[in-house]
Amino acid sequence: MVRVGVIGALGYAGRELIRLLIAHPQAKLTCAVEVESGNKLQDLIPSFRKMLDIELESFDPKTIAKKCDVVFLGLPAGKSMPLVAELYKEDVVIMDLGSDFRIKDPVAYSKYYKLEYTHPELVENSVYGLVPWYRDKIRDAKLVAVPGCFPISVILPLRPLVEEANPEIPIVIDSITGVSGAGRGLTEVYHFPNMNENLRAYRIGNHQHTPEIEQEIGGKWKVQFTPHVAPITRGILTTITLRPTRKIDPGELYSCYDNEPFVRVLPMGSFPEINYVRNSNFCDIGWMFDERTGNIVIVSAIDNLVGGTAGMGIQCLNVRFGFPEDTGLKFPGMMP
Amino acid sequence: MVRVGVIGALGYAGRELIRLLIAHPQAKLTCAVEVESGNKLQDLIPSFRKMLDIELESFDPKTIAKKCDVVFLGLPAGKSMPLVAELYKEDVVIMDLGSDFRIKDPVAYSKYYKLEYTHPELVENSVYGLVPWYRDKIRDAKLVAVPGCFPISVILPLRPLVEEANPEIPIVIDSITGVSGAGRGLTEVYHFPNMNENLRAYRIGNHQHTPEIEQEIGGKWKVQFTPHVAPITRGILTTITLRPTRKIDPGELYSCYDNEPFVRVLPMGSFPEINYVRNSNFCDIGWMFDERTGNIVIVSAIDNLVGGTAGMGIQCLNVRFGFPEDTGLKFPGMMP
Amino acid sequence: MVRVGVIGALGYAGRELIRLLIAHPQAKLTCAVEVESGNKLQDLIPSFRKMLDIELESFDPKTIAKKCDVVFLGLPAGKSMPLVAELYKEDVVIMDLGSDFRIKDPVAYSKYYKLEYTHPELVENSVYGLVPWYRDKIRDAKLVAVPGCFPISVILPLRPLVEEANPEIPIVIDSITGVSGAGRGLTEVYHFPNMNENLRAYRIGNHQHTPEIEQEIGGKWKVQFTPHVAPITRGILTTITLRPTRKIDPGELYSCYDNEPFVRVLPMGSFPEINYVRNSNFCDIGWMFDERTGNIVIVSAIDNLVGGTAGMGIQCLNVRFGFPEDTGLKFPGMMP
Amino acid sequence: MVRVGVIGALGYAGRELIRLLIAHPQAKLTCAVEVESGNKLQDLIPSFRKMLDIELESFDPKTIAKKCDVVFLGLPAGKSMPLVAELYKEDVVIMDLGSDFRIKDPVAYSKYYKLEYTHPELVENSVYGLVPWYRDKIRDAKLVAVPGCFPISVILPLRPLVEEANPEIPIVIDSITGVSGAGRGLTEVYHFPNMNENLRAYRIGNHQHTPEIEQEIGGKWKVQFTPHVAPITRGILTTITLRPTRKIDPGELYSCYDNEPFVRVLPMGSFPEINYVRNSNFCDIGWMFDERTGNIVIVSAIDNLVGGTAGMGIQCLNVRFGFPEDTGLKFPGMMP
Repeated sequence: MVRVGVIGALGYAGRELIRLLIAHPQAKLTCAVEVESGNKLQDLIPSFRKMLDIELESFDPKTIAKKCDVVFLGLPAGKSMPLVAELYKEDVVIMDLGSDFRIKDPVAYSKYYKLEYTHPELVENSVYGLVPWYRDKIRDAKLVAVPGCFPISVILPLRPLVEEANPEIPIVIDSITGVSGAGRGLTEVYHFPNMNENLRAYRIGNHQHTPEIEQEIGGKWKVQFTPHVAPITRGILTTITLRPTRKIDPGELYSCYDNEPFVRVLPMGSFPEINYVRNSNFCDIGWMFDERTGNIVIVSAIDNLVGGTAGMGIQCLNVRFGFPEDTGLKFPGMMP
Repeated sequence: MVRVGVIGALGYAGRELIRLLIAHPQAKLTCAVEVESGNKLQDLIPSFRKMLDIELESFDPKTIAKKCDVVFLGLPAGKSMPLVAELYKEDVVIMDLGSDFRIKDPVAYSKYYKLEYTHPELVENSVYGLVPWYRDKIRDAKLVAVPGCFPISVILPLRPLVEEANPEIPIVIDSITGVSGAGRGLTEVYHFPNMNENLRAYRIGNHQHTPEIEQEIGGKWKVQFTPHVAPITRGILTTITLRPTRKIDPGELYSCYDNEPFVRVLPMGSFPEINYVRNSNFCDIGWMFDERTGNIVIVSAIDNLVGGTAGMGIQCLNVRFGFPEDTGLKFPGMMP
Repeated sequence: MVRVGVIGALGYAGRELIRLLIAHPQAKLTCAVEVESGNKLQDLIPSFRKMLDIELESFDPKTIAKKCDVVFLGLPAGKSMPLVAELYKEDVVIMDLGSDFRIKDPVAYSKYYKLEYTHPELVENSVYGLVPWYRDKIRDAKLVAVPGCFPISVILPLRPLVEEANPEIPIVIDSITGVSGAGRGLTEVYHFPNMNENLRAYRIGNHQHTPEIEQEIGGKWKVQFTPHVAPITRGILTTITLRPTRKIDPGELYSCYDNEPFVRVLPMGSFPEINYVRNSNFCDIGWMFDERTGNIVIVSAIDNLVGGTAGMGIQCLNVRFGFPEDTGLKFPGMMP
Repeated sequence: MVRVGVIGALGYAGRELIRLLIAHPQAKLTCAVEVESGNKLQDLIPSFRKMLDIELESFDPKTIAKKCDVVFLGLPAGKSMPLVAELYKEDVVIMDLGSDFRIKDPVAYSKYYKLEYTHPELVENSVYGLVPWYRDKIRDAKLVAVPGCFPISVILPLRPLVEEANPEIPIVIDSITGVSGAGRGLTEVYHFPNMNENLRAYRIGNHQHTPEIEQEIGGKWKVQFTPHVAPITRGILTTITLRPTRKIDPGELYSCYDNEPFVRVLPMGSFPEINYVRNSNFCDIGWMFDERTGNIVIVSAIDNLVGGTAGMGIQCLNVRFGFPEDTGLKFPGMMP
């Protein structure tokens, strides 16, 4: 039984991880850190009543290391780095669900996050936790940077094909996310009556996931990434339009995912929907080659909180501690 | 490992049960029956891809009994009875998620369902599968009638208190359900643009769950049951207004649920929300005594497809086959 | 052309009134008051761009009286009373969309609002702006208290029948409202991911609309009022269960509404939905007599922001200034 | 007072037009045609009760011409053409809200609609009813083809800039529509529990609005048009990514819309939302030039049923019959 700590237990990422941990047969929540320390977690998140009984603690690296084999952080940008610097000295595996260790280039990080990389040596030693592409490195990682939700929905479908894309023409990525991606903080735009029945695009041309995506597709291709938000709670649907330099067969290139437990590639012309991945760890991918325009259009679907955050985190944990990769993740999409 | 069959695998009840079975460590889907026999289930419900590989069969009681230790039926009213009559002769436990065996009084059944009880002897021998109240009988039942979703949301909160209610005054029950309760059949009222942003009441004074509720609260009390539907997928919120004949302490009466794994009673003045039970097997109950009016107002919340149908079915299976009751059901509410 | 001022122009009530004023052929917004004075209204509410061009002002009774024939207030409880006290001295008609002048009994007001009636003489002189019942008094009112949204949805259907209800048994009222009823203030419960797919009951037994309802149905009957909120933006569906002392014909009693332009009574057994009143000034009413229980069940539907607030305000304006009552309100329900 | 007929009165386009006609001070519904002839329209669409009293008729061109000055058709593809051929001989103006007369190239029409142009001479004589670009021709048109909802959301923002786009690189258009765009016909994908909380892309590479868009942006540019649907009732948000051949100032090019009553161009970096156009005739446009990629990203928002269909139809009527263009359309966006 792996003992797990969660820092940021009330955030959407943290509480989703705890929800999955409760159902995980080989892992157990032993430490929950939040600013509301002293309260019982199940009193603040009533869905946990009769499921766990744990008191929120304040951050103390030594205590955490003593109680936990692995600790997850689910914190806003810039908040993980100083805590990880302390935890790194302890005998505990660290998995960051936030953005502080994903981007290798400190300049890009600073530009998009308006923050500084205070611990570049940690970033260097971190492993990008996208399991299908970094499985081997995760196995003995000390620090895993679990990828962002948009990047997962982009990199998984794009990486097997990107070599064929014309690097002169930016790859167009229009993603639509559910509102839980914005976290639990109150803002006027996500007040229910303002967001219900609404659609909006945001951070066009400067979204902070742009450098993470460009890094992980190889560094040679630019992306025009436009995120949108729709009035659903969970899910990301990403549409990618790329211009290949020659006629290719995406189906063949996607065969690299045949044995992936949580990536499903559909036959040409079939496209995924949120419906089939909600509350699951899957990334579904559909594609078509448009003879008329010469473009390839790809659509992917994930649950941003499971496959896009906490589920990917659990999969990293399974890889790291030698459990079958689908342990605690055998949920098919919830539909309806 | 219990071998499980599901008749009506594409219906909302059936597919939800299969979803839960996939995550159940002691049960395995071995037979799925549907009119679309010959197709792979995972081709028709894409969320099951890479999770199971099973072909839909047509109904054959001998084959089912050979392949299964227990078989669930999730069928429209009147469709289970003839099939159960055949299955009853075989060596297999039967759990009906539908309405054909819940009502002991054939007259009431006929009146509300406009159908006849063709096998009253089966009804007589069936056990009402409301675990907290029929646990012992379920343990060696041959045929379990898993309760309806509205009745679960009503009977669990009402039964401990009902003796105190004035039988001269009908108990007022206003329930609000999500649309999945209406099933997968297409109807104009549940076409998305017609139901989105809409609220409606229906079958006022003649809803088919009325006699089931009145039977299970003791037969002495009438209920004025008014169901409503709101534009959410899952969940039932039920508000019960009852008039006690004397001053009582509901908190004390509710202590009967202290050790129930899936019933949570809140302190007076706290009320449940769908948020905390979604995708879980819990029934949450809140209540208050209104000194001004002399009434007790109770609010309960369940997920109609888990705690209200398939989860209760799994709990019955666990009781019947001797597993810990929460096996395969250790999901706290999904929120957000 | 009537010149209209709005105090609280950014609140949901105020901005809805302004939306309706733009379409009103005989009224014109001449003054908009908000704490964000100095800004252009259309810059803060982009839906008004190219529709009006007006700068927000701070409150000054003399200026308002000079610019306006009538002034509406859409403010939180307790905020209108001091402003109205000042406006009352000026030559301007006052219509309050808030709650400060609706309740004649200062004790009840204090109890439910936790505020004091600092100007009981104004309350005394105010007219309750429920047009179908106070039309004549509104015609020459100086101060109109436009009713609350829940009360409108309750009083219109209940008042013609209430005399027949047994006063010993509290009338049970379960209302379901859209989230816009909670206003534009940010709160955790109405953060989109928390409210989406959710249902909740609140202020059970102590909602501030209780005394307003009891006052307007005659003072002799108690109500057990339980408000619920569903994840829709607009609309209130109210279900009323009352126990008549004798057999009555509600259809006949409802004939009092035959000539009301904005009240529609359906034939027995037909029930209203939000769908048919959204974005309209209508109150639709359905009812049935349940022979089995002896109860009458009534369901009403309104758009809380039009028929429940701003539309009723415009109708008051039309009555007060001698326009046909449906001027500027000829919108049928928007569906889909 | 212009006398108006509507063929297809129960379809979403037809009923929306009727809703707007009720509020139009210079137009009056005098004839409503539907297959359900003999029924009262207000009995089938209860939102129209107490607002109009009209019986549905079957199609008879002579009767229609006698009763109407202008007739609108809101019918599925291929259904308008034969009816218009008959109406064309009568003394009545014809405005088609459907797709039968929008595409000048019969080959493209057949390819995308799988139908034949049986009356190419009518298509030739029809005027494309996009008011800002065809105002003068509409003034004395006999037959107006009101544009499609997606095309309006694309052509209005794209046409002023398209000359600057590199014709070698297809313009990428990702649109998100509300479900009302799919019409009132029942389909499994738009059954509420299937579409709620869902997102999907459809008809990728072969949507029937593709040739209409390419025709109206000049015929020289190809578009990669990918429509998506989100669980909202009304609205289209369109994101266009184009690659200019040189540095341009979109703000200047957009000045052509300065005096358009229903097109609003926002300052660079501001983007529209459905919130501000819902239930209005506006098309809001935002844009930014991304220095990093060299692309221009444009976002537009409309209400698909008002600005995207019926509202544009009313604007055509106003132009054709000499009313101020905003007559009956003075509704700002409804928000919340």
